Amino acid sequence: MNGMGEETGFEVVIVVPKGKRKEGGDLAEKGDSVEFLVRELEKAGLIVERFRGVPAEFLKIAAPLIVLGQAAAELELKKLTYIGMELQFEWDMVTAFVRQPDGSLFSWYERYSCFRHLLYGIVNKTDSNIALKFNDKDIKYEKNESLLKRLEIEGVVKQVFPLHDEVKRKQLLRKWDLNWLDFTWQPVDEIYSYFGSKIASYFSFLGMYTRWLFFPAAFGLATQLFDFGRMQFLVLPSFFVFIISWAVFFFQFWKRKNSALLARWGINYSLNECKAMPSEANEFNYTDPIKKKFYSSRPAEKTSIQADEWWGIFRKVRNNVIVVLGIICLQLPFELTYAHLYNITQIEVLRYLLTAAYLIAIQYYTRIGGKVAVALIKYENNQGEDSSAASLVYKVFGLYFMQSYIGLFYHAVVYRNLGTLRKVLIQRLIVSQVLENLIENSIPYVSYNYKKYLALHKKKNDNSSPMGKNVRLSTRVEKEFLKPSYSASIGADLEDGLFDDYLELALQFGMIMMFACAFPLVFCFATLNNITEIRADALKLLAMLRRPVPRASATIGAWSNIFQFLIVMAICTNSLLLICLYDQEGKWRIEPGLAAILLIEHILLFVKFGLSHFVPEEPAWVRVNRLRNVSQARDLYSKQLLRSITKLEHKDD
Amino acid sequence: MNGMGEETGFEVVIVVPKGKRKEGGDLAEKGDSVEFLVRELEKAGLIVERFRGVPAEFLKIAAPLIVLGQAAAELELKKLTYIGMELQFEWDMVTAFVRQPDGSLFSWYERYSCFRHLLYGIVNKTDSNIALKFNDKDIKYEKNESLLKRLEIEGVVKQVFPLHDEVKRKQLLRKWDLNWLDFTWQPVDEIYSYFGSKIASYFSFLGMYTRWLFFPAAFGLATQLFDFGRMQFLVLPSFFVFIISWAVFFFQFWKRKNSALLARWGINYSLNECKAMPSEANEFNYTDPIKKKFYSSRPAEKTSIQADEWWGIFRKVRNNVIVVLGIICLQLPFELTYAHLYNITQIEVLRYLLTAAYLIAIQYYTRIGGKVAVALIKYENNQGEDSSAASLVYKVFGLYFMQSYIGLFYHAVVYRNLGTLRKVLIQRLIVSQVLENLIENSIPYVSYNYKKYLALHKKKNDNSSPMGKNVRLSTRVEKEFLKPSYSASIGADLEDGLFDDYLELALQFGMIMMFACAFPLVFCFATLNNITEIRADALKLLAMLRRPVPRASATIGAWSNIFQFLIVMAICTNSLLLICLYDQEGKWRIEPGLAAILLIEHILLFVKFGLSHFVPEEPAWVRVNRLRNVSQARDLYSKQLLRSITKLEHKDD
Repeated sequence: MNGMGEETGFEVVIVVPKGKRKEGGDLAEKGDSVEFLVRELEKAGLIVERFRGVPAEFLKIAAPLIVLGQAAAELELKKLTYIGMELQFEWDMVTAFVRQPDGSLFSWYERYSCFRHLLYGIVNKTDSNIALKFNDKDIKYEKNESLLKRLEIEGVVKQVFPLHDEVKRKQLLRKWDLNWLDFTWQPVDEIYSYFGSKIASYFSFLGMYTRWLFFPAAFGLATQLFDFGRMQFLVLPSFFVFIISWAVFFFQFWKRKNSALLARWGINYSLNECKAMPSEANEFNYTDPIKKKFYSSRPAEKTSIQADEWWGIFRKVRNNVIVVLGIICLQLPFELTYAHLYNITQIEVLRYLLTAAYLIAIQYYTRIGGKVAVALIKYENNQGEDSSAASLVYKVFGLYFMQSYIGLFYHAVVYRNLGTLRKVLIQRLIVSQVLENLIENSIPYVSYNYKKYLALHKKKNDNSSPMGKNVRLSTRVEKEFLKPSYSASIGADLEDGLFDDYLELALQFGMIMMFACAFPLVFCFATLNNITEIRADALKLLAMLRRPVPRASATIGAWSNIFQFLIVMAICTNSLLLICLYDQEGKWRIEPGLAAILLIEHILLFVKFGLSHFVPEEPAWVRVNRLRNVSQARDLYSKQLLRSITKLEHKDD
Repeated sequence: MNGMGEETGFEVVIVVPKGKRKEGGDLAEKGDSVEFLVRELEKAGLIVERFRGVPAEFLKIAAPLIVLGQAAAELELKKLTYIGMELQFEWDMVTAFVRQPDGSLFSWYERYSCFRHLLYGIVNKTDSNIALKFNDKDIKYEKNESLLKRLEIEGVVKQVFPLHDEVKRKQLLRKWDLNWLDFTWQPVDEIYSYFGSKIASYFSFLGMYTRWLFFPAAFGLATQLFDFGRMQFLVLPSFFVFIISWAVFFFQFWKRKNSALLARWGINYSLNECKAMPSEANEFNYTDPIKKKFYSSRPAEKTSIQADEWWGIFRKVRNNVIVVLGIICLQLPFELTYAHLYNITQIEVLRYLLTAAYLIAIQYYTRIGGKVAVALIKYENNQGEDSSAASLVYKVFGLYFMQSYIGLFYHAVVYRNLGTLRKVLIQRLIVSQVLENLIENSIPYVSYNYKKYLALHKKKNDNSSPMGKNVRLSTRVEKEFLKPSYSASIGADLEDGLFDDYLELALQFGMIMMFACAFPLVFCFATLNNITEIRADALKLLAMLRRPVPRASATIGAWSNIFQFLIVMAICTNSLLLICLYDQEGKWRIEPGLAAILLIEHILLFVKFGLSHFVPEEPAWVRVNRLRNVSQARDLYSKQLLRSITKLEHKDD
């Protein structure tokens, strides 16, 4: 059984508890539910490999391509074709569909969707309930019920999770994580085919961000190293203008890069809104698919949709008001109290105690806040998972924004204490981010080892084991089972661990941008931090955690809006900082300096919002490709389509 | 021949000079070019009615629907079908296409395009050149040449223009222009079917704008009528907040209304970008329409498109820099000089002289500016006519912006002379706009009468006329021939008279928004002005001018961005005005007041850019309809499409 874990093709595993071994080692018993499950899986065309590991029993699942293809057709999976349109997948017309960059037919996301469809699609098609057994427990498998779901409810199936592909994992580890020659280069296409579009776009963003960070880092370093003599007073304002323009350009170019990536991966994101459509809307006129005057007719339906829309907007606004009020009325006083107390406390020990108390309190606060946010978005009729996720991101970010920056604002504005501000910035960036990276990577490792110890310890005490003392975790599957999964700290189903990674990135971006003028050197720390972040995150995904469940989204989504918001905030806060810096007397007077700063601020705001007119978000070659394919499709099939429509029309008459 | 002008169906007219009448009144001569043209037109399936009017000879053209349909198929016209996709028109599958709201198959824009295609599509298909004659002048009609173009060059065809439809025109006049019961209501659908989408969307915008203007007008009136006692100092800031929010909401709702209108008219604007594609891009792979890996392959093509794109952006930026520098270096000093001279001149007569000189100079300046702008955009590779028009709009608006507002800024900021500012505002709004309306409507009338006089005068002197002294313009066609066409003052082919109307509206909007806090009553004047504007513009279109050539665009296009820009400007200028108002001593000190105003300004800027997250631009019911139809199409024809693609693939192998 050795080397089995390294076999490719086994991409999903089902974990069941170890059944009691009957006399003579005979596992198979009439009506044994695990045996039944294996038979049903094999009937569905899947390849099942069953083996008993130390902590549990594992059913490794693989599937021939044809089985996956049929599942995709059943799922009505939309797939890009060579004419640039997304069409429903059909197995017998497989040559019409665009292949992945690595040559395979399905992307990892599509494969996983098909696996899930196959696994959970096994239902009781007989006319009667089937009685199953597991460890002397009776299980009633009802008609038209999903077998896997029933077994999950009964506790027979403990977990279903995707497996690492050992060959590709090692390849990636070598090419990506252990490639120390180029700090920011990453094999994005391979990450895409192994982890899916969402994770690949995160790393692609992180890499590009880090690469671009070198410019402000160099400028920041220069402001500290050189003395500009009489022009010294111009250094900070020009740094301000530079970093804002830098950020605006960076995001515009990131959007271009993102659409280029999507084009390369064959993801047609502009059409994806069709997928996100609520299914009810599709059912509106299920009975008569084609009607004359579909635009102007059916005023009742129009009214109901409009009412729904406004009700949805109202609820969204209400929820946001709740969140904003919650943050302002509960979190703001708390944070200000902490910052104030910290500032007036003179004894170092008391300060440490205060900070400890604060950190514990903040943990609870963010956890409660996250739960409230998750609860609130359930009452919004967000269209599709993407929109819910975005709504959650905004709410939780509001919380973290207040928590991370209010103390800094306090030092900057109320006390005008730039010294403390700088100290806090360094402390936050170096200490907390380095610590976070350590914790991020060590927690999975510790938790894995603890679980391993528990499993082995239990095994040793378990006398039924024939192996006696020499227990080892011999296979990869067992090891992966013990590893933690890639999940978000706010614990919602909507997001995976990327939420935390993006949050970290956004908070860092806000910190360095909003207080750039107070401490230009901060960009150097951020650059160093991000270089380690790339490696650490890669290591975490490849070695520390289970393979993450792939997700469909392929842009940085709501985070993009948050970064934009942070840029606008940065324009305002830096203006404020500059005013504070040049306002030596403490009396706020509009001298030429203040007027100039306000002018710069307004010009930057215009640049921020005007730039998108000049640099389009979609590179021209992507656009040309897309449109060419659309018009080709239209021209090629125009006549056929028209004939079918007229036929349907005549049938109608 | 009476009553002929009122016949429907004759929608286009060709004007030719009156040929010399041969002895015996025999017009038809072998090789006579007009006779030849009529025969060719009739061969093309058109119905031609020829008659001699007083100023010229007219060929009125009508066409049976089937001839138009065939022309549409030849033009490869894209038309909305019942599955929500736009497909190439085919005459024999006519039932598949969505009809217009008024029941006709083609919209006015489509009909006119077909007419033009039919008229200019008459070419010499014989193997030899044909010799034609007109008034003893020899015309060589070469092979494969368009007859109408040749005749236009030779001066035989003087004009081709669309004709008014007398029945519908009178109906519209009654229902729209002479309907004084509801000031802002307009029969938008009928305007659409008579004038096309561009003019209909202008009037729909103007109506909605006027209706929304009632709110700030009421508030503005209230600020002048009532005394708020101790709260008086809060009136202007709250008016400021109110009008900015009002404007932001107005434009968001206008976008929604616009997409609802497009949906009602069956215009699928999101797909229109395919039409705007440069034709070269389509020809890139004309020889092999389907290629594997079309996304990632052909790096050479990708590079060339990218180079083109950056070169295009560079030229655009360069042109804009030229325009901005031209405005700042040439126009700004000129305007400031005028404002300054006007301010220091004490003698009333000199002021009038100064203003007269200024007005004459400004006429030349804007005309030159317009020509420069038209010349500049020729060097930009704008994609399609829409984009060129937008680029022109921005450039010309920059000119007018400086011209209209710099004097006002001068009074407001440099002299802090709110009295003069108010006087100038009233003067501009009432005097100039009323005058403009008068001129706008009287110039066509005067020009029509002058032309009529000329024609009749010439006729009287012309002894060859058998009618002698009693010459009258008996038909509508003759009258329309003498009317001016609806053209832009900057005289470009890219824009029609709507350019001037939008410009007037945008300048008014900027005036009332940017100086709202200086004089809240200004909204009342704008409201009154717009009510008359609706009627005046309608009268102009229906009675004073020729029927305008229909245009494809169906949104307010680039003007929308200009209005948005004016809102942002309004936030800044009103903040400045408020600071001036509350800064009594003339020394700019940040007291709580100034800080509060800056705070309001920033909050408003955030509101401006954040609102679009809450109110989507496309109403949900439009979106649901659109997506439903797209997904229906996809699901219905998915299999057929796939089969065709795989067939093509196999042919490839």
